[in-house]
Amino acid sequence: MIHIERSTNLKVKPAQEKLGFGQYFTDHMFMLDYDVTKGWHDARIVPYQPITLDPAAKVFHYGQTIFEGLKAYRGGDSRIRLFRPEANIARMNRSNVRMSVPQLDSDQVLAALEKLIEVDAKWIPSEPGTSLYIRPFVFATQPVLGVAPSEQYQFIIIMSPVGAYYPEGINPVRIFVESEHVRASVGGVGEAKTAGNYAATFMSQQTAKEAGYTQVMWLDSAQHRFIEEVGSMNVFFRIDGKVCTPALSGSILAGITRSSIIQLLASWGIAVEERTISIEELYEAGREGRLEEAFGTGTAAVVSPIGELCWQGERLIIGESRTGELAKRLYDALTGIQYGTVEDTFGWVKAVDVQAALV
Amino acid sequence: MIHIERSTNLKVKPAQEKLGFGQYFTDHMFMLDYDVTKGWHDARIVPYQPITLDPAAKVFHYGQTIFEGLKAYRGGDSRIRLFRPEANIARMNRSNVRMSVPQLDSDQVLAALEKLIEVDAKWIPSEPGTSLYIRPFVFATQPVLGVAPSEQYQFIIIMSPVGAYYPEGINPVRIFVESEHVRASVGGVGEAKTAGNYAATFMSQQTAKEAGYTQVMWLDSAQHRFIEEVGSMNVFFRIDGKVCTPALSGSILAGITRSSIIQLLASWGIAVEERTISIEELYEAGREGRLEEAFGTGTAAVVSPIGELCWQGERLIIGESRTGELAKRLYDALTGIQYGTVEDTFGWVKAVDVQAALV
Ligand SMILES: Cc1ncc(COP(=O)(O)O)c(C=O)c1O
Ligand SMILES: Cc1ncc(COP(=O)(O)O)c(C=O)c1O
Repeated sequence: MIHIERSTNLKVKPAQEKLGFGQYFTDHMFMLDYDVTKGWHDARIVPYQPITLDPAAKVFHYGQTIFEGLKAYRGGDSRIRLFRPEANIARMNRSNVRMSVPQLDSDQVLAALEKLIEVDAKWIPSEPGTSLYIRPFVFATQPVLGVAPSEQYQFIIIMSPVGAYYPEGINPVRIFVESEHVRASVGGVGEAKTAGNYAATFMSQQTAKEAGYTQVMWLDSAQHRFIEEVGSMNVFFRIDGKVCTPALSGSILAGITRSSIIQLLASWGIAVEERTISIEELYEAGREGRLEEAFGTGTAAVVSPIGELCWQGERLIIGESRTGELAKRLYDALTGIQYGTVEDTFGWVKAVDVQAALV
Repeated sequence: MIHIERSTNLKVKPAQEKLGFGQYFTDHMFMLDYDVTKGWHDARIVPYQPITLDPAAKVFHYGQTIFEGLKAYRGGDSRIRLFRPEANIARMNRSNVRMSVPQLDSDQVLAALEKLIEVDAKWIPSEPGTSLYIRPFVFATQPVLGVAPSEQYQFIIIMSPVGAYYPEGINPVRIFVESEHVRASVGGVGEAKTAGNYAATFMSQQTAKEAGYTQVMWLDSAQHRFIEEVGSMNVFFRIDGKVCTPALSGSILAGITRSSIIQLLASWGIAVEERTISIEELYEAGREGRLEEAFGTGTAAVVSPIGELCWQGERLIIGESRTGELAKRLYDALTGIQYGTVEDTFGWVKAVDVQAALV
């Protein structure tokens, strides 16, 4: 049972062309508390509001927190669709294991998601490329300084109407290959969607930005040779007509877009090699004109073509810096399924029944 | 200028023998805000109270946060001493660089520390082994979902009267050598005191605990061979009469206790080798009876003898599981300086003038 307290002070919604990413939040949020004796309890939807925490809460000191990111789409048919929410919830619980956070009940989280979307359905934008970004997150609240898992947590879902993640949209981005700093290592927490993994990328990202690049491509921590991922995206390459992507080595996030892309390609008869890909191999292919396409994939950016790499000072232009044919086809197929204009033969979308709540 | 708002509702202080670690907090806290336009502003001491944050605050999602840990000691002479606070503040600013957090003004932070200690001086316990643990921390507060450094932060200092960190006290602890999971890697954020580094250790720590060990010893992420640190401590070994400790490779924290131990030993004519130390070398020395002592060092635990290691199922008893001679001598020297019973020839302690505030 979710207790619902409706806001009596609804916000003015931002203009759809000014959404940006993660700037605006809807009128309500979902909350759920945990403590060792009671377990998860007190499920509620409340007006979007500040969180109150003891300054000793473990999240501030020991970073025990995980999150997810998924989207709800408003179709041309006015129906609301979630994309593979069960996959996000399953990944959240895998992250929870790695970070010693108690498991959440998948059904309860899915029900909470749907209910919250229903309550704030008017916030789901309708312009092409827009959607409602959904951010579930858990964090440790126990006010004790001691390096050990918390005995208290809070689980929250907030939602933000969004436009394109990169200002470039579906246009190719320029990527800086980081060969000194690393994001994560095998045996570490790189495959968990935990907050600390992201702050760890800021310094490199700033350096890349100052040099005119949109994002950073990460290499493995042991040898600085093997490609891992790109910013908050997994990465695919088309070399000599064959598609490949770094294998899930343990240090990269198992993207849901990544898995969807692999399945989509398989359905088109295109096999994806999941393997180790060295930056040398990539550059060699690039120099010889055999690197046909490169693109990142993720919930926020969907499919984002990579038009240029810079590794140790050497620039590599990919596909004449134009959006590749495969990237475009995948983008269209995926967004088609998400917005309901292409038939979903995979059982990925979950329609949410929002009834009267609609504008 | 620090604005001071005194609590009108002082807490009951816990009994000194029941302090534990990080369970109780003093009556006041220090706060300082940051935003890109104003810089750091609004320095204030207020009653210890909950923090209020937007649920989209970046600390929850991207883990941009750093902290420090130092102690104030009440001497037998009733004077209050801080131990090398400038070193903690300098390390905090180094962590800030790594985590893209704006620099703090060292003088302002030191003044804040001293003022807060003065206000809550009655909280500094007097029993042997007790002290006031001080926790400065900074975290990102900007309510925007987007993987980029925050434009707003809060810096807070809270304080907790503490007893011994480990229930074992100065008695030897049993340590589990982790050969699968890793804490940090060179090029990552292991040398920054950032929250995410700690949650990353929980899983291994739990495994170790369940097997009857107090803490985990970390090996390097690339080869799982080279010793890094132990829980929240740096680690020293005495092999064949020579003292060594892992070099500051970039993935371990540059402990202030570590640096003090090295200087103390040097003043006794004992050189410390800062170098790579493999777990094989350590075990070989141990099996041949040449590993005379092992101990961890840190602000919380001071000097903590290691009586036993377990690596890949092989147990190694060190120094008959007794507190080693060197560990004991270092513990006495260091705590002597901290509590003012041994002359501080290093200029490490900073007496805080607490005047009338004392009980
Ligand atoms: C580090 C990282 N890699 C990859 C991805 C892509 O994952 P997904 O496709 O599930 O959004 C994300 C975003 O969630 C991410 O944060
Ligand atoms: C990971 C880690 N290593 C080592 C130390 C020891 O550092 P210090 O002696 O400055 O307390 C600490 C504690 O601060 C720590 O958190």
